[in-house]
Amino acid sequence: MNVALLGYGFMGRAHSNAYHQVGHFFDLATLPVRKIICGRDPTAVAKMAAQWGWDEIATDWRAVIGRKDIDIIDIATPNHLHAEIAIAAAQAGKIVLCEKPLALSAADGERMLAAIGSLPNLVWFNYRRVPAIMLAKRWIDEGRIGTPYHYRATYLQQWGNDPARRTGWKLERATAGSGVIVDLLCHIMDLALWLNGPITEINALTHTFIEGREIEDASLAMARFANGSIGSFEATRFGIGSLNRNTFKIHGSAGMIGFNLEDLNRLSYFDARLPREEQGTRSLLATAPEHPFGTTFWKPGHIIGYEHTFIATLGEFLLALEKGEPFHPNFADGLAVQRMLDAVERSAAIRQWESPLT
Amino acid sequence: MNVALLGYGFMGRAHSNAYHQVGHFFDLATLPVRKIICGRDPTAVAKMAAQWGWDEIATDWRAVIGRKDIDIIDIATPNHLHAEIAIAAAQAGKIVLCEKPLALSAADGERMLAAIGSLPNLVWFNYRRVPAIMLAKRWIDEGRIGTPYHYRATYLQQWGNDPARRTGWKLERATAGSGVIVDLLCHIMDLALWLNGPITEINALTHTFIEGREIEDASLAMARFANGSIGSFEATRFGIGSLNRNTFKIHGSAGMIGFNLEDLNRLSYFDARLPREEQGTRSLLATAPEHPFGTTFWKPGHIIGYEHTFIATLGEFLLALEKGEPFHPNFADGLAVQRMLDAVERSAAIRQWESPLT
Amino acid sequence: MNVALLGYGFMGRAHSNAYHQVGHFFDLATLPVRKIICGRDPTAVAKMAAQWGWDEIATDWRAVIGRKDIDIIDIATPNHLHAEIAIAAAQAGKIVLCEKPLALSAADGERMLAAIGSLPNLVWFNYRRVPAIMLAKRWIDEGRIGTPYHYRATYLQQWGNDPARRTGWKLERATAGSGVIVDLLCHIMDLALWLNGPITEINALTHTFIEGREIEDASLAMARFANGSIGSFEATRFGIGSLNRNTFKIHGSAGMIGFNLEDLNRLSYFDARLPREEQGTRSLLATAPEHPFGTTFWKPGHIIGYEHTFIATLGEFLLALEKGEPFHPNFADGLAVQRMLDAVERSAAIRQWESPLT
Amino acid sequence: MNVALLGYGFMGRAHSNAYHQVGHFFDLATLPVRKIICGRDPTAVAKMAAQWGWDEIATDWRAVIGRKDIDIIDIATPNHLHAEIAIAAAQAGKIVLCEKPLALSAADGERMLAAIGSLPNLVWFNYRRVPAIMLAKRWIDEGRIGTPYHYRATYLQQWGNDPARRTGWKLERATAGSGVIVDLLCHIMDLALWLNGPITEINALTHTFIEGREIEDASLAMARFANGSIGSFEATRFGIGSLNRNTFKIHGSAGMIGFNLEDLNRLSYFDARLPREEQGTRSLLATAPEHPFGTTFWKPGHIIGYEHTFIATLGEFLLALEKGEPFHPNFADGLAVQRMLDAVERSAAIRQWESPLT
Repeated sequence: MNVALLGYGFMGRAHSNAYHQVGHFFDLATLPVRKIICGRDPTAVAKMAAQWGWDEIATDWRAVIGRKDIDIIDIATPNHLHAEIAIAAAQAGKIVLCEKPLALSAADGERMLAAIGSLPNLVWFNYRRVPAIMLAKRWIDEGRIGTPYHYRATYLQQWGNDPARRTGWKLERATAGSGVIVDLLCHIMDLALWLNGPITEINALTHTFIEGREIEDASLAMARFANGSIGSFEATRFGIGSLNRNTFKIHGSAGMIGFNLEDLNRLSYFDARLPREEQGTRSLLATAPEHPFGTTFWKPGHIIGYEHTFIATLGEFLLALEKGEPFHPNFADGLAVQRMLDAVERSAAIRQWESPLT
Repeated sequence: MNVALLGYGFMGRAHSNAYHQVGHFFDLATLPVRKIICGRDPTAVAKMAAQWGWDEIATDWRAVIGRKDIDIIDIATPNHLHAEIAIAAAQAGKIVLCEKPLALSAADGERMLAAIGSLPNLVWFNYRRVPAIMLAKRWIDEGRIGTPYHYRATYLQQWGNDPARRTGWKLERATAGSGVIVDLLCHIMDLALWLNGPITEINALTHTFIEGREIEDASLAMARFANGSIGSFEATRFGIGSLNRNTFKIHGSAGMIGFNLEDLNRLSYFDARLPREEQGTRSLLATAPEHPFGTTFWKPGHIIGYEHTFIATLGEFLLALEKGEPFHPNFADGLAVQRMLDAVERSAAIRQWESPLT
Repeated sequence: MNVALLGYGFMGRAHSNAYHQVGHFFDLATLPVRKIICGRDPTAVAKMAAQWGWDEIATDWRAVIGRKDIDIIDIATPNHLHAEIAIAAAQAGKIVLCEKPLALSAADGERMLAAIGSLPNLVWFNYRRVPAIMLAKRWIDEGRIGTPYHYRATYLQQWGNDPARRTGWKLERATAGSGVIVDLLCHIMDLALWLNGPITEINALTHTFIEGREIEDASLAMARFANGSIGSFEATRFGIGSLNRNTFKIHGSAGMIGFNLEDLNRLSYFDARLPREEQGTRSLLATAPEHPFGTTFWKPGHIIGYEHTFIATLGEFLLALEKGEPFHPNFADGLAVQRMLDAVERSAAIRQWESPLT
Repeated sequence: MNVALLGYGFMGRAHSNAYHQVGHFFDLATLPVRKIICGRDPTAVAKMAAQWGWDEIATDWRAVIGRKDIDIIDIATPNHLHAEIAIAAAQAGKIVLCEKPLALSAADGERMLAAIGSLPNLVWFNYRRVPAIMLAKRWIDEGRIGTPYHYRATYLQQWGNDPARRTGWKLERATAGSGVIVDLLCHIMDLALWLNGPITEINALTHTFIEGREIEDASLAMARFANGSIGSFEATRFGIGSLNRNTFKIHGSAGMIGFNLEDLNRLSYFDARLPREEQGTRSLLATAPEHPFGTTFWKPGHIIGYEHTFIATLGEFLLALEKGEPFHPNFADGLAVQRMLDAVERSAAIRQWESPLT
């Protein structure tokens, strides 16, 4: 299983680490081989290859895709390249792993989905593999919160306000596609669809605080879900005081479940089925053997960090591959998110409620 | 200063307590006299009068207003009576204190404001006098959070889902006017306008979870403020796990300030002007002598409760009265809120952005 | 029921408030009458009487005790006067309510207990009536934490370090008896004995940080309880960052219960009998109707404050009086605490384990 | 730099991971080579070697030490073997890394220190490299908390009560030496000495809750530090509700600093030098570039976990080795801790205050 990693930025590091570590924590028949890392700047790529143990370096992604000895193409490039690369890789018969957002538009996403066909594929919505979020999903599926009433998600960062960070591909429309919509809302939208099901309509606003900036700095949205619940979304790079505050809270007839990525080992839970005398908001450290990945990493109370979400995503993808089982989140999941992001952009533009187009 | 209290429910208790206690914590030249309590059920009113020390009872509010020996009319009736009573009381030259919402519509509110003229008046937006919120206001006015970017407010309760609470005037349109809009959104809208200034446009949805219920159980809204910040509002009686969770969070260029009524003695504060090494979210127990009302009640760390917000509101109103100074929140403030609530209802009905009408 | 309150400091205010408020929240056949307030400084006492509604003032406590029309003597004087006044009041046949500490020594406490005989009596260990602590007691008695293993209590304040507070009767041995031992350890010792039962032996240290100060600024202790658990105590006025941090935590075979006075409406609870997947630390807002005093004050989520612990203590005392039932905490409870405090002082002096003498 | 790892349990995994990862996060001239892993059970060792990439396996530690091609001996065996192995390794001229506790007694520790001479050495007190604790150390050294008054440390786990965990080398005196003293108190004692300096005297109790168990389940201690502050320690495996709750809190004249390993990315800080109006307890996410290891791992708000403390310890050890600089914690630090643990055991046995012997 030879891997070619396209991209060498922050995501390149997170993915490299996952390839290194996956065999230490998951029982895999075959380990992925870090074969090639590819990027535009040969010096920087070489440095990355040396530090993270990639056998070869390359600067031309088309050549990499053309190689017969590569089994997996892992796309960690700026957003605007995802579609083109993924489609080419799929056409070359590769397994494709793609960073979020899947694409810059649902139209691109549809082409990618069509191209990938039955080839194994993944979108790096890594937060689905946070153990506490896995536990939330399990409990929601078990009916522990009953009929959902409210879904509330935020993704707050603060670096948009940092004068030292006024450039970079994430701030340009051509390379990023949009601002917080593809960067932050994308993640919390995926979690919302996964945890609470489809959204039937959404109403959004976007806002740019820095004059002349091409993309939006913040977005708010209200939504109606197919299950009858209502929800709100907020994504911003101007949430001063918040470093990486990806949160959700779901209130249902039988309870509440909440999460905050800055405390990613914890789940917040309110069980409304208990006698009222005992009701309170519980803070669970989701590190016991009974919890998702509870025996994969360390011991109860010995917390894991951000990087483990990539290791766990990769581990489960490779296990599914070995067993020939379907894997989520995949391109179809990525496309569903992209349809919502498109609806958000349309809604903000025309100041109307919008539904995702299918 | 003879007071007539109209109403004998939960608010009647909270106000009665305030009249009792105000002289113990505020240095007033003249103390209010608990002269008459008025309500429809003479037995219940008599019981209330006995327990809370009202000299007389009455069942006809018009007769009470007609009495020469009454100086202050305090309205704690169901919402639909506020306008009629307040206008009659104003016409009789009384000082008028009115529970929130000021009215069922901005139109009614305007008539009330016109009627009250220069008579002293108050709307019981008691949360403005939570010491921690007073501190937030002071710090915002001092520029401590810099340019505001985001305002986020919720008011979550859970009793809407309680099968034992399916009736009562708060659930009927005729008496309540609306559901969470007048009950909960009303409070957080007043705080938003006070702390963050006017709203130029708002987009809202309302939802009723219980079939057949006349009024909305929940409302979401997005807003643009005149100061350039954007905000969101959520009010619900289906926020399972939340008893009385009135919260706000403001992110500005220089920091963040947050609050939760369930921990009303605390303020959350992030100072982004500190060296980054020292930046973190501070939890302040706003009970020091330097804090608002810091020498009014007990000692540092000896917390106060819900009822003190009414005592503090009344205390400052009476002090303003003695000094002949203006007081806020008054009918004009209540009307500003009412205009926003009307805009929320219109927006939810027509599914469009709306601006408050003036 | 005519009351004479001896003392007009901070405790005088807290007690005055309780007499005012008790009838509003408790259904009493007879209400206490605020008849006389007594203190050395007639001007200050007169001011206090005016503000808090005491009919008369006095400066000689012996004369007050001599009056036939006084039923209840409430002692809120500096500590060194408690024994003499209580014994005189008991000899005059009065009901006696005494601030903590009961006395400056167990020997004095024994004389007080002997004097009081069968007269109704109370020691103002007001924290026993915090609703969350009442709930803790109920749950411990129900066996919810199983076999107790650990008891851990702290009472941290910070004013000992305040240069502006270098004098006052609480800092002098003659009037206070000791420092944090009678002031802070006293409270957490009472809670420990009540919640976790008798202590068989204790080992303590005391320390004074300010040179020349007569009394101890801090005390640490380790203890063995009769129920087989072990515990630790810490009381200090140099716990910088803590305003009024009276906490306890009990770990037993079936769970954990914890409390912090700075969040007095909350109880912390860990139920180890739940499936491990669900185990976590719960934060309960003890304001529901099912909770102690849950229908006495306001509504769920509408929190109470420090002063309510005095109102609740007085309310239950008066109810017990009406029914002729025994009341706790009483002089016997105060004496049990005093025996522990004496053991702490002996242990610190001779640097040995000590047992309470009986 | 060939490494031989002796031991293949939980610590063997944590160390193996560190050798794998250190080069990814630290710029090292030479990377350690995972040469041999050694343990008694060849099947288990072989499995471990395969999973964690060790070149060879061995079952006889003496033979491993005898090999010329081994540069570093890393001891992760049960406690009772530390001294013998470390001394033999030192005599063979190896660099020695030893898990905590350094030894079973100060006497053994002294022999180890003598043997190691000027050879590079380390004791795995990994918690000194938690970024938040590094920050605490920096701030204490900068004088931010002023004159220390109180030090309070706990290490609470709950597995001692687990019927499924009644055997194992950690529960036997012959292999473990003691119970929570070497296992948990050891860690918090090292942090105390590092953060707050030497202890002049200590008074401890130990307790065993499970009948027939050879070693202590819990220990409490009070201490006096050379800097004039006083402190308390608690270590237990019966702290039901706590998974891995290693905490400290220091109160000084200028502020408070606190930490909890279950939230290891956070530091708690109270700055008493601020105007009192602004004082509150700050929760810092110690992941900014300005924080220790702030640019070593991921990005602000992207938290790290338990394993990173081993990576950071190893990284800094190897950097010190490259530069020929001294490293802490080393055998001398381990011995200082051992002297305190011996004093704790003596104190508990004779029920007296004890001082560490030097």
